[in-house]
Amino acid sequence: MNLIVDGKAKKVMSLNDNEVVIYFKDTATAGNGVKKETIGSKGILNNYISEIIFEYLIANGIDTHFIKRMSEREQRCKKVKIIPLEVIVRNFAAGSIVRRLGFEKGLKFKTPIVEFSYKCDELHDPLLNDEHIVALEVATYEEITYLKKQALKINKLLEELFKKIELCLVDFKLEFGFTNDGLIVLADEISPDNCRLWNDVQESFDKDVFREDKGDLVEAYTKILTLLRGVINE
Amino acid sequence: MNLIVDGKAKKVMSLNDNEVVIYFKDTATAGNGVKKETIGSKGILNNYISEIIFEYLIANGIDTHFIKRMSEREQRCKKVKIIPLEVIVRNFAAGSIVRRLGFEKGLKFKTPIVEFSYKCDELHDPLLNDEHIVALEVATYEEITYLKKQALKINKLLEELFKKIELCLVDFKLEFGFTNDGLIVLADEISPDNCRLWNDVQESFDKDVFREDKGDLVEAYTKILTLLRGVINE
Repeated sequence: MNLIVDGKAKKVMSLNDNEVVIYFKDTATAGNGVKKETIGSKGILNNYISEIIFEYLIANGIDTHFIKRMSEREQRCKKVKIIPLEVIVRNFAAGSIVRRLGFEKGLKFKTPIVEFSYKCDELHDPLLNDEHIVALEVATYEEITYLKKQALKINKLLEELFKKIELCLVDFKLEFGFTNDGLIVLADEISPDNCRLWNDVQESFDKDVFREDKGDLVEAYTKILTLLRGVINE
Repeated sequence: MNLIVDGKAKKVMSLNDNEVVIYFKDTATAGNGVKKETIGSKGILNNYISEIIFEYLIANGIDTHFIKRMSEREQRCKKVKIIPLEVIVRNFAAGSIVRRLGFEKGLKFKTPIVEFSYKCDELHDPLLNDEHIVALEVATYEEITYLKKQALKINKLLEELFKKIELCLVDFKLEFGFTNDGLIVLADEISPDNCRLWNDVQESFDKDVFREDKGDLVEAYTKILTLLRGVINE
């Protein structure tokens, strides 16, 4: 299989004209790759968690790239051309928005905030407004509207899912891509690597455990997987 | 008169319940106040230039705070509650958008870009999207739409004005405020302190002369004033 992308936490290999295999690594990075570690079994956990979440979203009418998990570390997905945007949804203030705009950590926004960052390591993924996105020829206004609508739909579904395991969905990052048919679908992964999940005392069950050195990441991710399996099989 | 604001380049004093006097200083600052200098007569030049531009905009139907120039350094204006946003319009790529998003300096945008920054020195005037503005309770979506519409109208008028003196309006910054009647009006100043103006070989006739130490600022601003007087009196 042809290697298409060798990313920080995943590899993407071409399976055929329309499909890829995504392989989940154990690498954890933070601060645009400045902090980097290999954490045993993280890739396996994220592969299983992402499978559960994508199947849940598909069952609820969201178009995604996901086809099927193949092994502990691999899943088969539709081949997509990734739109170079990080689509971030924020329900509560945490992370960069606290540093950047001075919101108090834990503040609940009256309505969820959707933010776009430009996926560009050299520029450190800068924030974009709609007009920047169009000027950069990354997406049209129509596509931006669609991405926002999908991001908010997914937010509602994920909030409901995590509520069942008594966790609060603080914020998360999505990526979208174009299939060969020109359809925009949800791509990448959804796992504690790109969601912030808090219990009722703001304890983290996500990559902040690694970012801020506050506990055992494998233990936190294993808890998420176990709890999700419980509610999905209900 | 009561001093209301003692800013980097201007002082604002209360004249009565509905009016203020704005006094133009000779101070020039750049890089969020890191670079600072007193430049003889800059305040006078900006007061006269801003008078011409505001009178031109008023004659073309734009609501502003400007009433009348009173002296070399003073103008009488309506008292407004400033909306803490820098409304930036960009016709060509220059300055922070080049560093931030990697556009080539001098690139002409297909349509002008409107950007909002949060007027907050401690946070270094961070870029905001519409949803941040609403979450910060700085403006409503309706007000944002109005600010964008006015900014683009003003852009068209200023482009035409500067074209008459053979200068290209690269970008500029506006501020708006609420009058006591609750009307949103253009406020602050419009001068080479907050516009980028290039001749046909990208030579600057604006504060970049000071920011980048590339010539005599008073000479550049005097040229703008002289040329504007020429076309206004036509």
